[in-house]
Order: sequence, then C-alpha cells, then structure tokens
Amino acid sequence: MTIRVGIVGATGYTALEVARLLLAHPEAELVAATSRAEEGTSIAEIHPELAGRCEVAIESLDPASLAKKCDVVMCCLPHGASAETCKELVAEGVRVIDFSADFRLSDQVTYEKWYGVEHPWPERIGSTVYGLPEFFAEQIRQADLVANPGCYPTSAILPLAPLIANQLIEATDIIVDSKSGVSGAGRSAKVATLYCEVNESIAAYGVGCHRHQPEMADLVQRIGGQEISLLFTPHLTPMDRGILSTIYVRPRNIHAAEVMACWRKQYADSPFVNAVDHLPATKHVSGTNYVQMSARDAGDRIVLVSAIDNLTKGASGAAIQNMNVMFGLEQTTGL
Amino acid sequence: MTIRVGIVGATGYTALEVARLLLAHPEAELVAATSRAEEGTSIAEIHPELAGRCEVAIESLDPASLAKKCDVVMCCLPHGASAETCKELVAEGVRVIDFSADFRLSDQVTYEKWYGVEHPWPERIGSTVYGLPEFFAEQIRQADLVANPGCYPTSAILPLAPLIANQLIEATDIIVDSKSGVSGAGRSAKVATLYCEVNESIAAYGVGCHRHQPEMADLVQRIGGQEISLLFTPHLTPMDRGILSTIYVRPRNIHAAEVMACWRKQYADSPFVNAVDHLPATKHVSGTNYVQMSARDAGDRIVLVSAIDNLTKGASGAAIQNMNVMFGLEQTTGL
Amino acid sequence: MTIRVGIVGATGYTALEVARLLLAHPEAELVAATSRAEEGTSIAEIHPELAGRCEVAIESLDPASLAKKCDVVMCCLPHGASAETCKELVAEGVRVIDFSADFRLSDQVTYEKWYGVEHPWPERIGSTVYGLPEFFAEQIRQADLVANPGCYPTSAILPLAPLIANQLIEATDIIVDSKSGVSGAGRSAKVATLYCEVNESIAAYGVGCHRHQPEMADLVQRIGGQEISLLFTPHLTPMDRGILSTIYVRPRNIHAAEVMACWRKQYADSPFVNAVDHLPATKHVSGTNYVQMSARDAGDRIVLVSAIDNLTKGASGAAIQNMNVMFGLEQTTGL
Amino acid sequence: MTIRVGIVGATGYTALEVARLLLAHPEAELVAATSRAEEGTSIAEIHPELAGRCEVAIESLDPASLAKKCDVVMCCLPHGASAETCKELVAEGVRVIDFSADFRLSDQVTYEKWYGVEHPWPERIGSTVYGLPEFFAEQIRQADLVANPGCYPTSAILPLAPLIANQLIEATDIIVDSKSGVSGAGRSAKVATLYCEVNESIAAYGVGCHRHQPEMADLVQRIGGQEISLLFTPHLTPMDRGILSTIYVRPRNIHAAEVMACWRKQYADSPFVNAVDHLPATKHVSGTNYVQMSARDAGDRIVLVSAIDNLTKGASGAAIQNMNVMFGLEQTTGL
Repeated sequence: MTIRVGIVGATGYTALEVARLLLAHPEAELVAATSRAEEGTSIAEIHPELAGRCEVAIESLDPASLAKKCDVVMCCLPHGASAETCKELVAEGVRVIDFSADFRLSDQVTYEKWYGVEHPWPERIGSTVYGLPEFFAEQIRQADLVANPGCYPTSAILPLAPLIANQLIEATDIIVDSKSGVSGAGRSAKVATLYCEVNESIAAYGVGCHRHQPEMADLVQRIGGQEISLLFTPHLTPMDRGILSTIYVRPRNIHAAEVMACWRKQYADSPFVNAVDHLPATKHVSGTNYVQMSARDAGDRIVLVSAIDNLTKGASGAAIQNMNVMFGLEQTTGL
Repeated sequence: MTIRVGIVGATGYTALEVARLLLAHPEAELVAATSRAEEGTSIAEIHPELAGRCEVAIESLDPASLAKKCDVVMCCLPHGASAETCKELVAEGVRVIDFSADFRLSDQVTYEKWYGVEHPWPERIGSTVYGLPEFFAEQIRQADLVANPGCYPTSAILPLAPLIANQLIEATDIIVDSKSGVSGAGRSAKVATLYCEVNESIAAYGVGCHRHQPEMADLVQRIGGQEISLLFTPHLTPMDRGILSTIYVRPRNIHAAEVMACWRKQYADSPFVNAVDHLPATKHVSGTNYVQMSARDAGDRIVLVSAIDNLTKGASGAAIQNMNVMFGLEQTTGL
Repeated sequence: MTIRVGIVGATGYTALEVARLLLAHPEAELVAATSRAEEGTSIAEIHPELAGRCEVAIESLDPASLAKKCDVVMCCLPHGASAETCKELVAEGVRVIDFSADFRLSDQVTYEKWYGVEHPWPERIGSTVYGLPEFFAEQIRQADLVANPGCYPTSAILPLAPLIANQLIEATDIIVDSKSGVSGAGRSAKVATLYCEVNESIAAYGVGCHRHQPEMADLVQRIGGQEISLLFTPHLTPMDRGILSTIYVRPRNIHAAEVMACWRKQYADSPFVNAVDHLPATKHVSGTNYVQMSARDAGDRIVLVSAIDNLTKGASGAAIQNMNVMFGLEQTTGL
Repeated sequence: MTIRVGIVGATGYTALEVARLLLAHPEAELVAATSRAEEGTSIAEIHPELAGRCEVAIESLDPASLAKKCDVVMCCLPHGASAETCKELVAEGVRVIDFSADFRLSDQVTYEKWYGVEHPWPERIGSTVYGLPEFFAEQIRQADLVANPGCYPTSAILPLAPLIANQLIEATDIIVDSKSGVSGAGRSAKVATLYCEVNESIAAYGVGCHRHQPEMADLVQRIGGQEISLLFTPHLTPMDRGILSTIYVRPRNIHAAEVMACWRKQYADSPFVNAVDHLPATKHVSGTNYVQMSARDAGDRIVLVSAIDNLTKGASGAAIQNMNVMFGLEQTTGL
C-alpha cells in the first residue's frame, strides 16, 4: 500500500521539500497539491526543480475532494488560516500534519497573546500532539492531527529537554542563540529577504520577542516536568538552509561529558539524533533529517551546540517522519 | 607631508586592506612591503586587486632599511614572530602598529598561558598602549608601538566597557556570542577554510577557549575599573567580512534605553561608533571603519548587538585610525 | 567650491552607491534625495549603511526646487519615467546624469522597439552624450545631460571598441557571455531575486533578447566606425556585485598580445582601465571604479575577459567619474 | 543481493557524495574505503556529515583484499595514479568505476599530450567504455572497467551529441562557456579555493587549454560520427555545486524548437535527461542526478543551456547510475 499524500499551500519552500522527500520515499506518493494563487498550473511550474520528476496538477482547495484522494494532508498555510483548514480536513476524515504554529502551544491564552489572532479551533490547543517522535511517538501513531514542530524549537528542545528532565541543569537563565538560513523566512516577495539584503551579512531579529520562544519553553517544560526561563535570539544567516543553536546553560554539578551521556541514553532509539564529539556545523546535516549535538564546558556554564536543516528536520523531514509513525512505518523510511 | 607607510607580512588579507585604505588616504602612502615567501614580486602580483593601482615591490625584511624608508610600519606577522620584529623595528627608531596579540594583554603570565610561547619582549607587556582611540587616544598619539586590537574584542569592548564603567550592568555572567566572516581566519592554505567547507554552513569553534576571551575581559576590566567574568563563543559564518556580536548582560535596574543613552554620551566624540535604533547587520558596516550598536530589553536580560567589519574596524581600518592619531591627523582622515 | 549633488529615486542600490561614493569625495556632497514612496524619512532610514554618516531628508520630487539646491542631479528612475524627469530638470537649468537607458541609444526606433514605450523626449535621442569618459570626455565636459552607460555594455564596449576601431577583429560573430551579480536586478520585492532563489545557483536569462544587446552593439559601432553583429547572453550569478564578460572574437591575423598592446595604447590616459596579464576575477575590482581586461588565444578565436563592479564602474562610479569631468575635476577625484 | 561497494581515495568530495548516495540506495552498501593519509580513522571522521550514519573504517589500499570484499570499486584517485590502481584492481577480478580521466579519451597520444604523463595501461585507452549510460548502456553492462565522465563534458556532450549525430547543427565553431561550482576543484588545501578567494567573485580559467576540451570534443565526435571543432571556457562560480553550460551553435536551417524535439526523442528512455521549457538554473538540479537542458534562438545562432550538479550527474551520481547498469538494476535505483 502506498500512502497518498496531499499538500495544501504548495508554493513555498516547505512544500517543495515535502515533494522532494516524497520522490525518494518507497511507500508514499504525492497525489494532490493546492494553491489559491497557482490553480491550473502544475507543481513543476511553481518549482522547476520538479520538472520531469513530479507533474501533479495544482488545484484550488476543496477539503472534501482532497480528503477523498489522500490518506494524509500536509498543511503548509500560515498560522490562523491553517487552523481553519485543518479543522475542515479533519472533519472530512483525512489525517493532517499541520506545519503552522496553530496547535503547538499548550494553551489558548499564550497562543492569542503571541500570535495576535483569535484561534479558530481552540478545543484542539493543548490536546493536539506535538510532532516530535523522539518524545511523542505513541500519540502521533494514533493522531488525526499532528502539530509539526517549529524549526528553532526543534533545535532547542532536543538538546534541552532531557537535561531538564534529568535535572542536570538549572531551569533558569537558559540562553538560546540561534542562527538560521534564509529559507526559514519563506518564499514571499519581500525586500528584507532579497539576495542583496541578506547575502554577506548576519543580523539578529526578534530579540526576546520571537514566537518560537514560548514554543520552545512550553515543550521543554512539558517534557522536562518543571517550569523554565529561557531567552531566545534568532539570527538571519547568509545560507539557504540550516539552523545552528548555541545554548548557554548552568550545570548542576556536572560536566559536558554527563550531558553527552544523558543524550546518548535518551536518544539511543531515536535514529535521527546524534550526539557527536566534534562541534557540529549546519553543513553536516544539510538536506538530511539528522540532528547533531555536542556539549562543551566553559567556565561555570556548559555550552550546547545543535545543528539541523531547518527545511528537513526543522519542517518537511519531520513531517515525513511523523507520517511514517502515523502509518506504522519505520521512522527512517525514505529519509 | 605624506606619512610613509611600510607593511611587514604583505601576503594576507589585513595587508591588502591596509593597502586598499592607503590608496584612498590623502596624507599617507604605502612605500614598502615585505614578505619572506614573495620577495622579488610586487604587491599587485600577490593581490591582483592592486593591479595598476599600487606596484610596491616586495622585499625581504631588513628592519634598519625599512625604518629609514618609513614613518610607520604595520606589522602583520603571527604572534610571537611579530613581537621580535616589532622590537627590532622600534629599536631602529620607526613607529610600529602591531596587528598581532603580542602586546595587547596586561600581563606576561596570561599571555604565555593562552599563547603557549615565551614572550620575546616581556617588558612591553602591560606598558604598550592598546590601539583603541575611543579610549586611549592620548597615549596612542605619543606611542612608539601600538597594539592594534583583536577583531572580536573590538566588537565586545566598545559596547561593554562604558556599561561596566558606569555600573549599569552586572560584572558577572556576561555572554558574548560572536559571528565572524571567514577572512578572520587568514589566507593560508587550509582545508578548514576552503570554500566548500564553510559555504552554506555556520559553526561554533573555540568554545570557551578562544584567545580573544581573555583580551576582551582584560580590556573591559581596564576601562571599566572592575573585574568581570565573561564567556565568549566565536562562530565561523559564510561571508567574507564582518563580525556580529550578540551580548547577553544583566542590567542593574536599567533598561535598554539607558544603555543607548550611555553609549551616545560616551561616544559623542568618537566618529566611528554609532548607537543605532535598528538592529545592526554586518552588511551595514561592510568595508567601513564604523561600529553600529543597539540594545534590546529581553526578560531580565538586556541584549546588546554590535556590528563591525573585521578587516576594517577589526584590523586595518583601526590601524589607519591609530596612525592618524599618531601623526596628529583627524581620526577620520582617509577612512 | 563643493559640488552639490541630488539623487532622484533614492531607494535603490545605485542610489546607495552614489551616497557611499560621495561620502569619500573631497569636492562633492549629497544635498538632496527624493523618493515618492519614502517621503518624510531620511536616506539613512532607507539605507542603514548610512546611519550616522549621512542624514539627508527624503523629499518628494519638485524639479524646480531640486534644481535650485543642486549643481547636478543623479536620476535613478526606471526608463520612461526617467526621461520625463530629466526633461523637467534640464528645463530648470540643472545638469543631469541619467542612470536609465532613455538617452543611450542612437535612434528612437530602436529605443521604442526594445523598450516598448513611446519616448517622452525623442529630440535628445542620438544627441545626448554617452557617459563613457574613456571615449567622450570632451562632450561630457559641456553636457547638460549625460546618459550614464549600462552595466553590461560598459564591460563589453571597453574591450571591444578599440579592437573594432583598429580593425584587429572581425565585425561579425562576436559573442558576449556575461555573468552579473544580483544587485543589477534592483531592490524591488520580487520572488525571482529572493536569496533562496538565486543563492547557490547560476542561470542564463534574456538569451538574445536583453536590452543591453542593442546598446553595446550601438556603441561599439559608433566608436569603431563600422557595423557589427553581436550576440549577448547575461547570467545571474550568486554574488552581490560584479560583472564578468567573456567575449569570443575572431582575430584578423593577430594574437592576444596585439589585443593587449592595442588596449594599453588606447587606454594609456584612462585611469580606470587596466589591461592585466592575469585572468581577472570580479573580486579584483569589487567596490572600485576599475576595469580589468585580459586576452587569450584559443584556437581560431581570441577570448577577451573583462571584469567590473556593476554598481561602481557599471553605474554609480561611472556617474561620479562623469560628474568629475563635467565639473573640471580629475576623473579619479574621490574614486 | 546487496552490491558491496568500495571507495579508493575517500577524502574528497566525490567520495563523500558516493557515500551519501549509497546511504539512500536500497541495493548497494559501502563496505570499504581507503586513504593513504587517513588510515586508521573512519570515514565519518573525515566527513562529519556521515557521523552516526556510516562508520566504515579507513584502510590503506590493498587491491587483493579490497577485491575480495567488494563487488565494485569506485576509484577516486588523481589521473595517472588512478590508472595504475585500476589495473591492479581489475587484475584481482573486481569491477571498477574510474573517476579520473585516465580511460576517457580515444587515444594515447592525445592523453599524454594533454595530461603530461605516460599512461600506465595504454592498452585500455580507446577500449574502455565511457560511462554515459545515455549512449553506452550495453557496453557498461558488461564492463570490467568504466571510465566515469568528466563533469564539464557531461554538461556539453548530452546537449551537443544528438544535434551533431542528426546533423542539425554545424560541426565547427561550437563554443562552450561553462560555469562550475567550487567543489569541482577538489578538497586539497590551496589558497586559490579558499572561501575568501572565490566567494563573491567569478572568473574564467584554463581558457582554451582545459583538459575537458579534448574530452568533450572526442565524445561528441564518437557519438555524432563526424569531426567537430569546439572551444571551451570554464569559469569558477561562487557556489558549492552545479555546472551551467551555455553553448553557442550554428543551426543548419532549424530553430530551437527542432533542437528540443531532437532531445526529447533522443532521451525518451533516459530517465535523467529533461528538455525543459524554462531556462535551467543549477539550483534546479542540485543534489540530483538530473540534467535540464533548453534551447533558444538568438540571431543566426542557437543557444543551448544545460544544468547539472557537478558532484552528482557530473561525478558520483553518474557512477551510481553506471553501477546500476553494471549490476542489472534500473538506472534510477537509489538516485
């Protein structure tokens, strides 16, 4: 049996990455793709990378029709819009992986404060599984709706959560300094992400006010079982792909070696998470679903460094991994 | 009168940047350049950027002869070797600006611990002026030898020192997370700085053990008048030039606005230091001697962000600025 | 006396480059800048590179008022719109350097065919000097209006024109294969020039139908004194700045050495044009007003290679050079 | 049955690309890797991309032992050295895919003229199959030794050969202007390929004297059945991967549409060759084994544009494709 996959919102980079990954997947196939703006073209006209490889037609979104054609839908719409569509799709009986932030947080108040919109389906906040199979595989397996994690949060939760859960580090004064490739900013026409604006340049943005800060704190708390305080600074880095997070934590009478040991135990059965001896670079995981993490002692701090590909483990690869879990495949199938 | 400038160690990127800046300088001229490896060629053969613009011959280093030809020598040799050459040049009566770390620190023990070599001229450690005209212009004016600052330290000292001096922030738990372009790694043939190793990738290195950590701590202490504790993490970023430092400090009952005010007062007469409202990007200062700095409140921290060009304000531009001070010109002449 | 310079259309990259170059110019100063969209801000708000360095206010365009404040206006508007504004400014008595293509070609028919608009000031087509001081300095000196050359044409005309004029190469079957940095595409928000579209990628565009093809042919013909046939292919290259043109010509019983000799004779008094022995790279001229050119024998062809910075010699540097000529300064002043 | 693959010369980028592709291959596995310099480490220590994914030990080369462990060996040594090793491996009875140029050309005289070395196994020049399955699949199937094509030649032969074979274009005056990413220059420590030398820069090299010129001419002649004359200019382009070839040909009373039709017919059964309507960019094929080609009328020329990934279809992907053919698999298996 081949899993029939649909994409809602096919014009962006995460949609292209889903399509790219499905081409190499032995048990799943892209069968439908929607875009309001591009109806009537094919996905290969939007993404010339797919020319001669994938010629799925672009249709306008009709939840009922899509639900019939697909076993699972990847919803790549912006927050707010996404929740509405997910609601309709789930009502039609198709399983959904939502790329937006709409179902990631634990409570509606936090969501509405940080996202500035009323939530269209508040009952599912706090009751939708967070799509990190490293911690929530059981719930993902049975889910009708999966909240695919944010890119920055993935790079911070995976190194931090087991250290908090095992009380190896202080829960306060955690600093996450992240550097992301430009694809994270999406594919809409904006001066700020023109080549000549970001090339040969690095800059911080959203200092202390980026929406991924509450998401990473929320999940580390949920997994770690205690409240934490965390400061997050993202940076726009001149590269297509990749997130490097440099994380400053206070150890509780341990050294970096214990961090590495904790990770290796925690992730022994997680095929994509590698605690590595070298300091990871984003290039080491580019185009893959892998996470590389390492730790270093530095004065009275320990510095954690994690690297992911923001489009793969940070978005579309994680979605495929979730899909594999949902349909009873090995997590690694096709990845 | 034209200042006659010599360069010792002409093959690297800082030497090219000195030559480039001197071409636009109305009162100084490159008259000599040395390189053991390239004797007999011209500087334009080593740096094709200079073809038809600057044809100074490359000679082997003879301190006595160089001292006769030059009013000031820019010494671009590696640490250790540089101190020896500086000693000979100063003995010959020519003024010297040293690009290495040999005379930057306050004491010999720290130097020998971090640099792992015996210092060839220990009497001048602690008694050589640190070439940051924003703080030491008087001593630079009269100096026979100037220790040109390190690139990362410049990006950290300028934002931090006045905040410590004015006791606006805590002296402990300062985190400096810096991102540098690749030119900082020099021009020698190494696999680690090949295009395909660093392009499309960002990575931390020297976590907690980079030699610029004691330099920035030392200078902030000297200027600020109290001991501090500081953790420094450098990152190699896929761009030619630029350093962005994201600095996490603990405010003492102030907000970011007070930081900006302090900077604006401190640097009112420093032509190259700009406290700016926007979050600076390295591109905003690329190819210039300017520093852009901004501050943001973030929970119980304040986040400082500074941007410089590592080859200009972080090296060769600072050297020209120092030369201007040494010879009684405006700091901005030719910059 | 300081030349007072105005910029019309201040939001783009060529405007920023004009402002950048004027900051280093000892005899000219930016005094006014206009932009319909950004009225009421300052030029440093549009271009953070200028923060603390140039705080000229952005006004809306009033030709009479601008003509009073300025000795010369750099008109950085799109074609069509530019000609209208130039007409008004010249009528107000201020000298104008036009960055658009509106006055570059020899005849109206060609203009209207390639640009698809009716020309608003056809009398000045064919009677406006082409701003290449290497050939037209006398006319530029006295001009009320100068047609600043296109970036690609500059990289092709300078190597080709003297070879045609001296009948060293065949006038037919000239192929110009050019590679340009992305800044040539301007600063408006378009998906096609987003970072993630052009980074790590090179592509041809406008094959055989780019508007710079008739311009380069026209000028080589005017200077060379005979009709030529030329095919031009531009390529978008993942870098901010620079144009490299690889030009395939048929020699008339000569070798590359004669090409080099011809260039050296032709450009002996042209300070920015350098025939170099090495194969030029765009980096060798980046940020400068220089042209580097070299020639190689290759079978029955000679291959010419030229490198310029598209924003400097290809646009704003050339404009400053033209301004220098118009106001009786050395061509190199401030460049 | 799983094909057991060995790599000789495991430190370079083509070796990493082979390893990367094998990780996704359902019927082949990397079982051995050699490197004189790195014996005793693992392939993941040389290439941190492979950490936790592939831990094959690095051994020193022993042909007899390697032949026992492997069904096929990918020989990634430099020319000259490669031929000797291939000879030993073939003598031991293992099938070999040679990445060097040692067995690509038709005759020894041309080889020794262009490569400047005596050939260690001249009997196999002209009698070794050229590993382009699009034309030579039958011979590849049975080969003990396959000459894997050069990267630039692949990008030129595929568009040109069918046009020559079908006499659609003139056999003379073909110009191939190619732009390559930096990985084509290999992974050895050289100043010329340091990040800061090639970033933000494009340059021609080897004009009219690059060794891939005779290779592409030779193969187009072999396939096309007539002598041709061709001029080739490679350019180093600031990107990791990709080759774009812009090819200027003279049509014989046809237009670009006939070129497209010819290609579509020729490559109807070649799964990796796509004639596309858009102008291809290297990004469209990055990381894949695909070729995209398009044609445009331009005056009395037709311009062909082809794009490949130099490490995949231009090297390691082609090798896997050849391996698939040699072992009776679909060409596309694992690609």
